[in-house]
Amino acid sequence: MTDANIEAVRDFFQEFQSRLVEKLESLDGGGKFSNERLDMPNKGYSRPRVLGGGSLFEKAAVHFTYSVGTALPAAATERNPELAGRAFRATALSVIVHPWNPHLPTTHMNLRMFLVDAQPEVWYFGGGFDLTPHLPYDEDIRTWHENARRACLSDTHYRQLKKQCDEYFYLPHRNETRGIGGLFFDDYVGDNFYDSFKFVRQVGHHFLLAYETIAKRRRDLEWTEEEEDWMLIRRGRYAEFNLAIDRGTKYGLQSGRRVESVLASLPPRAKWVYQFVPQPGSPSAKLAQYLRPGIDWLSIVDNSVDSECE
Amino acid sequence: MTDANIEAVRDFFQEFQSRLVEKLESLDGGGKFSNERLDMPNKGYSRPRVLGGGSLFEKAAVHFTYSVGTALPAAATERNPELAGRAFRATALSVIVHPWNPHLPTTHMNLRMFLVDAQPEVWYFGGGFDLTPHLPYDEDIRTWHENARRACLSDTHYRQLKKQCDEYFYLPHRNETRGIGGLFFDDYVGDNFYDSFKFVRQVGHHFLLAYETIAKRRRDLEWTEEEEDWMLIRRGRYAEFNLAIDRGTKYGLQSGRRVESVLASLPPRAKWVYQFVPQPGSPSAKLAQYLRPGIDWLSIVDNSVDSECE
Repeated sequence: MTDANIEAVRDFFQEFQSRLVEKLESLDGGGKFSNERLDMPNKGYSRPRVLGGGSLFEKAAVHFTYSVGTALPAAATERNPELAGRAFRATALSVIVHPWNPHLPTTHMNLRMFLVDAQPEVWYFGGGFDLTPHLPYDEDIRTWHENARRACLSDTHYRQLKKQCDEYFYLPHRNETRGIGGLFFDDYVGDNFYDSFKFVRQVGHHFLLAYETIAKRRRDLEWTEEEEDWMLIRRGRYAEFNLAIDRGTKYGLQSGRRVESVLASLPPRAKWVYQFVPQPGSPSAKLAQYLRPGIDWLSIVDNSVDSECE
Repeated sequence: MTDANIEAVRDFFQEFQSRLVEKLESLDGGGKFSNERLDMPNKGYSRPRVLGGGSLFEKAAVHFTYSVGTALPAAATERNPELAGRAFRATALSVIVHPWNPHLPTTHMNLRMFLVDAQPEVWYFGGGFDLTPHLPYDEDIRTWHENARRACLSDTHYRQLKKQCDEYFYLPHRNETRGIGGLFFDDYVGDNFYDSFKFVRQVGHHFLLAYETIAKRRRDLEWTEEEEDWMLIRRGRYAEFNLAIDRGTKYGLQSGRRVESVLASLPPRAKWVYQFVPQPGSPSAKLAQYLRPGIDWLSIVDNSVDSECE
């Protein structure tokens, strides 16, 4: 029965990958994603799809994988260490978008399901999405978190997953979050498979809806060289997170997965400027204020839609 | 007696920092280093000096630190774990140079001394230098390793420290070295303090001599946009090493040192291009061949000085 379940999730991830690719290509209005199928051991396979140098997107990657393994890596079972070493199947879909235009945020989404051979069988979902604006628009942050809220089962559920997102996408050495957050969940088992899978589909749906809304709202805005530089500095922080902190990247690098797929999330360009300080009162300075965990976006940005940035 | 010793090393590091700054400013022919003094606990202090946006150097950092600590961090005593937690003094000098011109290599040097409060007192040196060419010139690699050899006490000593350098500056996920190596030593205690300190001064001397020779040889060469892009991709690998692998960076980030100093080694600009492959037969392709541990540079590049690159 769970075999059929993970196959249903795998098939959904593949279909949703195609839908994401179509939508992103349509938003881009020129760029096309590469299309590969790579065979992995035991009839597993992956479909890494990358768009580089598009019209709107400097880089976008939408990766699907289906793995069949004989020994679950310890890193995949933080909360259930007794499962390490068991046979497993896993399927995952991940998205990263790095636009050219600093008015558009960088974004990331990940959805995954694990099925572990045990008595009884163990399955769980993981994933979430987060947004990394460069020039922050309160209206966009509201759109983002409203969609995050709608993907969840309740206010409480949203608040829990939002908190987990703030905690995960955090750079302790900078004392700042990677962006303005979203949702993050791991070892997720809802009331039953049907409801959990539905929730995961909702996360995917609201991710796409929110990012499409924001991208269309901002894509025609002009930008300055200073704003682009600021985006490149923020992308440096993104690279710091992905290389020095992210558990997923660490696991990928250590487990010997194809390095170009693991590191497809890295920004196409990045900058590091010694002791850079944003101009006081600028949108960059406003962003620096926003990179804190625990901000209640749905309350705070309610009555101040874009007063500073537009 | 060892108090006087570490103070002698500290004073040498400070003087050598000034000399490095002078030489690099003179090579640059325009850029000037910042000059700060930061007080640290227990009368320790640091002098981070950074040149950004020079004529020849896009970024150069020459950092001096003198630390007085009440508890030696475990990360500083890998080979002597019984020393962790003891009072200590440490002094260090580090250099990183990222030129604009891809014909010039990126380079790094680090020298450090630890003095640990124990009965009897324990002291040791660490450090080394390594070179990261973008467009490789055999003549430059020869200059580099000849100077590395001359800094060492013997052929055997050079081979040991060169091997350690190849092993340390290695990206396992890429299966490549960071560059063409040089010297790396840790927990170094020679026959006595006098000889060890002399060796460390020789390392500094030959680092400067070698890099100055190479920089003067290449600084007037023109470069293409493709060559600059290749340098930026190589710098992406540099950032991967520093953020995901380097023990020094990890230790710095985890121990709460000033993040802008710890990360001053990061490239000012970097690129990641999905599945980039250098043109066969190009200098970039030649470099890819050179990024392997264990190449005996002093034998190999003997009779083939720059035949491919010039």
